[in-house]
Amino acid sequence: MNFRSDNVFAASPEIMAALVAANQGAATSYGTDPLTKGLEKTFGDLFGSEVAVFPTVTGTAANALSLATLTPAYGAIFCHEEAHIYLEEAGGPEFYTGGAKLMPIRGKHGQMDLAALKEMMHTAGTRSVHWMPPTVVSVTQSTEAGTIYSLDALRAIIDAAKEKGLRVHMDGSRLGNALARLGCSPVDLTSKLGIDALSFGATKNGALGAEAVVLFKPTKEQRERLAYLHKRGGHLVSKMRFVSAQLEAYVKDGHWLQNAARANTMGARLDAGLKKIPGAVLEHPVEANEVFVRLPEPVIKALQADGAGFARWGAIDTTLVRLVCSFATTEKDVDDFLAAAGKRMAEVGGKAA
Amino acid sequence: MNFRSDNVFAASPEIMAALVAANQGAATSYGTDPLTKGLEKTFGDLFGSEVAVFPTVTGTAANALSLATLTPAYGAIFCHEEAHIYLEEAGGPEFYTGGAKLMPIRGKHGQMDLAALKEMMHTAGTRSVHWMPPTVVSVTQSTEAGTIYSLDALRAIIDAAKEKGLRVHMDGSRLGNALARLGCSPVDLTSKLGIDALSFGATKNGALGAEAVVLFKPTKEQRERLAYLHKRGGHLVSKMRFVSAQLEAYVKDGHWLQNAARANTMGARLDAGLKKIPGAVLEHPVEANEVFVRLPEPVIKALQADGAGFARWGAIDTTLVRLVCSFATTEKDVDDFLAAAGKRMAEVGGKAA
Amino acid sequence: MNFRSDNVFAASPEIMAALVAANQGAATSYGTDPLTKGLEKTFGDLFGSEVAVFPTVTGTAANALSLATLTPAYGAIFCHEEAHIYLEEAGGPEFYTGGAKLMPIRGKHGQMDLAALKEMMHTAGTRSVHWMPPTVVSVTQSTEAGTIYSLDALRAIIDAAKEKGLRVHMDGSRLGNALARLGCSPVDLTSKLGIDALSFGATKNGALGAEAVVLFKPTKEQRERLAYLHKRGGHLVSKMRFVSAQLEAYVKDGHWLQNAARANTMGARLDAGLKKIPGAVLEHPVEANEVFVRLPEPVIKALQADGAGFARWGAIDTTLVRLVCSFATTEKDVDDFLAAAGKRMAEVGGKAA
Amino acid sequence: MNFRSDNVFAASPEIMAALVAANQGAATSYGTDPLTKGLEKTFGDLFGSEVAVFPTVTGTAANALSLATLTPAYGAIFCHEEAHIYLEEAGGPEFYTGGAKLMPIRGKHGQMDLAALKEMMHTAGTRSVHWMPPTVVSVTQSTEAGTIYSLDALRAIIDAAKEKGLRVHMDGSRLGNALARLGCSPVDLTSKLGIDALSFGATKNGALGAEAVVLFKPTKEQRERLAYLHKRGGHLVSKMRFVSAQLEAYVKDGHWLQNAARANTMGARLDAGLKKIPGAVLEHPVEANEVFVRLPEPVIKALQADGAGFARWGAIDTTLVRLVCSFATTEKDVDDFLAAAGKRMAEVGGKAA
Repeated sequence: MNFRSDNVFAASPEIMAALVAANQGAATSYGTDPLTKGLEKTFGDLFGSEVAVFPTVTGTAANALSLATLTPAYGAIFCHEEAHIYLEEAGGPEFYTGGAKLMPIRGKHGQMDLAALKEMMHTAGTRSVHWMPPTVVSVTQSTEAGTIYSLDALRAIIDAAKEKGLRVHMDGSRLGNALARLGCSPVDLTSKLGIDALSFGATKNGALGAEAVVLFKPTKEQRERLAYLHKRGGHLVSKMRFVSAQLEAYVKDGHWLQNAARANTMGARLDAGLKKIPGAVLEHPVEANEVFVRLPEPVIKALQADGAGFARWGAIDTTLVRLVCSFATTEKDVDDFLAAAGKRMAEVGGKAA
Repeated sequence: MNFRSDNVFAASPEIMAALVAANQGAATSYGTDPLTKGLEKTFGDLFGSEVAVFPTVTGTAANALSLATLTPAYGAIFCHEEAHIYLEEAGGPEFYTGGAKLMPIRGKHGQMDLAALKEMMHTAGTRSVHWMPPTVVSVTQSTEAGTIYSLDALRAIIDAAKEKGLRVHMDGSRLGNALARLGCSPVDLTSKLGIDALSFGATKNGALGAEAVVLFKPTKEQRERLAYLHKRGGHLVSKMRFVSAQLEAYVKDGHWLQNAARANTMGARLDAGLKKIPGAVLEHPVEANEVFVRLPEPVIKALQADGAGFARWGAIDTTLVRLVCSFATTEKDVDDFLAAAGKRMAEVGGKAA
Repeated sequence: MNFRSDNVFAASPEIMAALVAANQGAATSYGTDPLTKGLEKTFGDLFGSEVAVFPTVTGTAANALSLATLTPAYGAIFCHEEAHIYLEEAGGPEFYTGGAKLMPIRGKHGQMDLAALKEMMHTAGTRSVHWMPPTVVSVTQSTEAGTIYSLDALRAIIDAAKEKGLRVHMDGSRLGNALARLGCSPVDLTSKLGIDALSFGATKNGALGAEAVVLFKPTKEQRERLAYLHKRGGHLVSKMRFVSAQLEAYVKDGHWLQNAARANTMGARLDAGLKKIPGAVLEHPVEANEVFVRLPEPVIKALQADGAGFARWGAIDTTLVRLVCSFATTEKDVDDFLAAAGKRMAEVGGKAA
Repeated sequence: MNFRSDNVFAASPEIMAALVAANQGAATSYGTDPLTKGLEKTFGDLFGSEVAVFPTVTGTAANALSLATLTPAYGAIFCHEEAHIYLEEAGGPEFYTGGAKLMPIRGKHGQMDLAALKEMMHTAGTRSVHWMPPTVVSVTQSTEAGTIYSLDALRAIIDAAKEKGLRVHMDGSRLGNALARLGCSPVDLTSKLGIDALSFGATKNGALGAEAVVLFKPTKEQRERLAYLHKRGGHLVSKMRFVSAQLEAYVKDGHWLQNAARANTMGARLDAGLKKIPGAVLEHPVEANEVFVRLPEPVIKALQADGAGFARWGAIDTTLVRLVCSFATTEKDVDDFLAAAGKRMAEVGGKAA
């Protein structure tokens, strides 16, 4: 019954096998090895665009490096008020950009409100040197609320940003979950929409530790800038083949989409089960592998005592709980949790928090 | 009819005279001159506390240096969502702190909502290394909305911050206006409340260009840190006596409070007059020298054509207008503006924007 | 007998008069006033080039802003190992650039050794992403050793830099002294040589506090970048007319060159006098207004007791002494010092340190 | 014949096995897993001190984070003029410290000259706020020149630094090689000498990608500071167990020392062989696993054509060549290279470069 996060699970056998296979003989270091050099072809094909690919081992690094490539230090980045880049990275984006400002945009269920975004872009864009000029819009897909932007919703945001001359970043730490749900191609969700930089995540969905910054149609200056930031940030791994091997195995033969589909299915199962439990109040629509539910405090404590793993979402004393499924989550995990939750909720009379 | 800002006016005769007087003979440089060295005594007496004083020539520098002395780069600073430090300094605080995050707190009329602040401090303070830890609360007095926090309101905010271990910064670019209105002493408004750092402003209220960071009961480490930041930021003026002379003259014999009272009186006169004009909608209570009023677009354009100077507050096409009075604003300025506004509003039938 | 620095002196009467004259009525703020707007014409004419001019009140700010406009954060800046930007600005350039590296180049008498510079540019420029790429060469004219690069020497350095694709910055905090000595025009020393950015100093040579970043043929992106850095660094003075008035008066009718010539003449007088004192060992050729001389420790102490003001150059216990003349230095100052020095040296038997 | 670097080789079987073993079931993320939590005990025992351990996957990260924990942004770090932190990390230390200055100290064979270091610490430490205050001395052991500081030499440097109030960092990316040579214990080389922070390297000596910042007797503030920097720099790996498993296996049963001894032995074999080849000029004493040799340009080209892998050290056209041995280097590799080198040198008549 471990729903703490998708990153508490081990790596998938396929990816582990690729890592072991990469551990043969000598290979040139610092990303000049064949595996790493092959990534731009692999990802270029995957996303239907000329790309630059810079592997990292954390999503925080991928996000911070992406943003720092897209904005000067004096720019304003707009993102959802609950975005990971805004709340959960201890200021990584501020650090890598040299003090850019992330400005939170409100919106339901983890998705930016288009009107609020447009108003902020308009206001900020008409002020003088006193305001930081808007430079980037960042969207997370799937979102931090476990929902998924529709292609139309994304297109509207991106078109509005482009119209104002902004660049667009996508935090794709759970991109696979979005693709598995939407059923569209990676091309549809990235290059066709006009994404400029993508944080491509693999760790939450089967890798040991492998993410990447993917720049779309990068300028020479962007490549250079990112290459140096990547190095001075300490992300140019000397034996890079071991990261690149994970990325290759991750996207090979649709491995990532299969893993993501599995996690989504478990999320849907949790959702369906919780909806049948009186007093368990779902906070957001469940569209991927994350479930947010409000439970009474005694139920939370009882479930923890029962051995269920999950995180409170917000302060330590909140009664909003996050449950995350992964490719390794089993039906039994889900059903055991639902049974326990049903029992514990019944004990408090099915009264909502 | 120039109400664009309090910094469009010339320096007061008293301060100009002090500057001329300081231009005699040699004086040691980089803040080791007698005028600068005397500031800690002068300000210590004024604020009833041991203080460190670092003169600057801009308020942006004073704010950024203050904040960077109080927080590490990974800290979160809470301020009102319309705070000057958040919106109007092009990221000066982010730059000087090395990428701290300013988190906006909502609240009416430029004043932070206490409950919202407390909730944010609680949530942020209970998260792990992923969130930036709350380190500073910054209040502006008088506020960016032209209102003034009551001593009780300030005390509640500061006590809540201190209870959570945060430090407190006051942006006092218009501190004189607040004192003139509240009728309390500088001691009451700073050291007695527990302020840790004050951005002390003189430029808007009569100086040519003179502000200061005032640290209250600074630690040795804070003094050192500020001294180096001040230097490397380019604010250690070599002929510092010319800044310090302004500061001395500014506070001498209550000059600053007289100037501020004059500006406040003109603000009140504008307020009273506008209230009599049908269709002119005041946005905030007028408690100092700034007046925010909504006017119909044709009226705004007509008043500009009449030669009135003021700023639209927000985007370039907003109908919210800011009028600022200074020590040099005359009754005639105010009355001429009111007459013009009355006439132009009548032309549109007194219909609000 | 005050030779501590050229910034211990008061402002010149001409500049003070201009400041007083500027203190009339209202003027738009933050550099939109007519005086500031006129600077680009004035300086464009002076330097024979299209320029952007951003006034500051310190030389540290002018240097740091200049460099941060010319290099990305990951670039290497080459300068003399005794350059002010390397040693005396508490890391201002590192701070404003976001962590660029200043790499010291050796060379006699404050002037970079051309071969050493070329070797460093070659080596650094052929390394991969591990080394910071060379981006800027910074020269100081007149130098920190009180010498002056010949036009030929400067041209050789600048041509070598340009050939490698680097940009060139000139620290001109004492530019007037160099011009007064060389007898060439400001055009010859800047735009004709291919300077990209100039830190233009006025404070040491008669102003109260006025310097400027002058960009030559700036790109749109450089202008924007500098404008935001200038603001967020806290250097966009609200009542900018008071800085700009100083700059205008400084260059009007050759005022700056007259002041500089006067200071140089006093430097030459000191030099000539010291050469006649047995045991006083001049460290560098005296070509401007600064004199470096080695004196025995007892003589240094005795001269201090005699009331002479000067700085030890390096550690507190060094016997290398710096004497600086300004436009306000008198023949009597110089002669009194020489008399005292002669007497004190005689007391120790004319034995060198 | 691959001597390009120690990081071109695969991971050792022991470490790969540990990684595979760690890939079982769920584990809490972001360093809260048992393997990571166990590191402080393991390293505390190893180094004979209370320590804090923060794993990273690159040495650049370990160095930059170590330095940024020890110095404020305005501090000066002294290191050898050929130190990796100075030349080879694209400004990582400048980036993480927020613009501290690395000041190069000369010295033979990669080791700082004690007198030069002392003089610089003295001078910098007696200057005012204009100079950056000396805060850290960084030593590399084994050095970038493939030599090893004696314990006495290190003690002299560290004692001199401590006397001036500086902190000491050791870049131990090849610490194992030093220990294997000196035959002393890890305690002797670190805590007994008074090291404050160690960059502990495993990647070059058998790991896939595992390094660590080790703080000795850290203060609460240092731990907090490092924890946040580690996170915001993007180095808090979510599945940290996979890094920690490598570190545990690396030091278990002396695995690291055996690997290092093997590499050193191969280095010595190269050294001995090269000494017998007329015209091959060894640049530094060979004391660890790196060999620096000057060869004529035609010989370099011929050896490359023969399939030998190595790096030119400095510019692309230098004739100084670096050869690095690792735990996986074989006697045959060495002997083949020596044979080829002997043959090629003979072809040019044994004439030195």
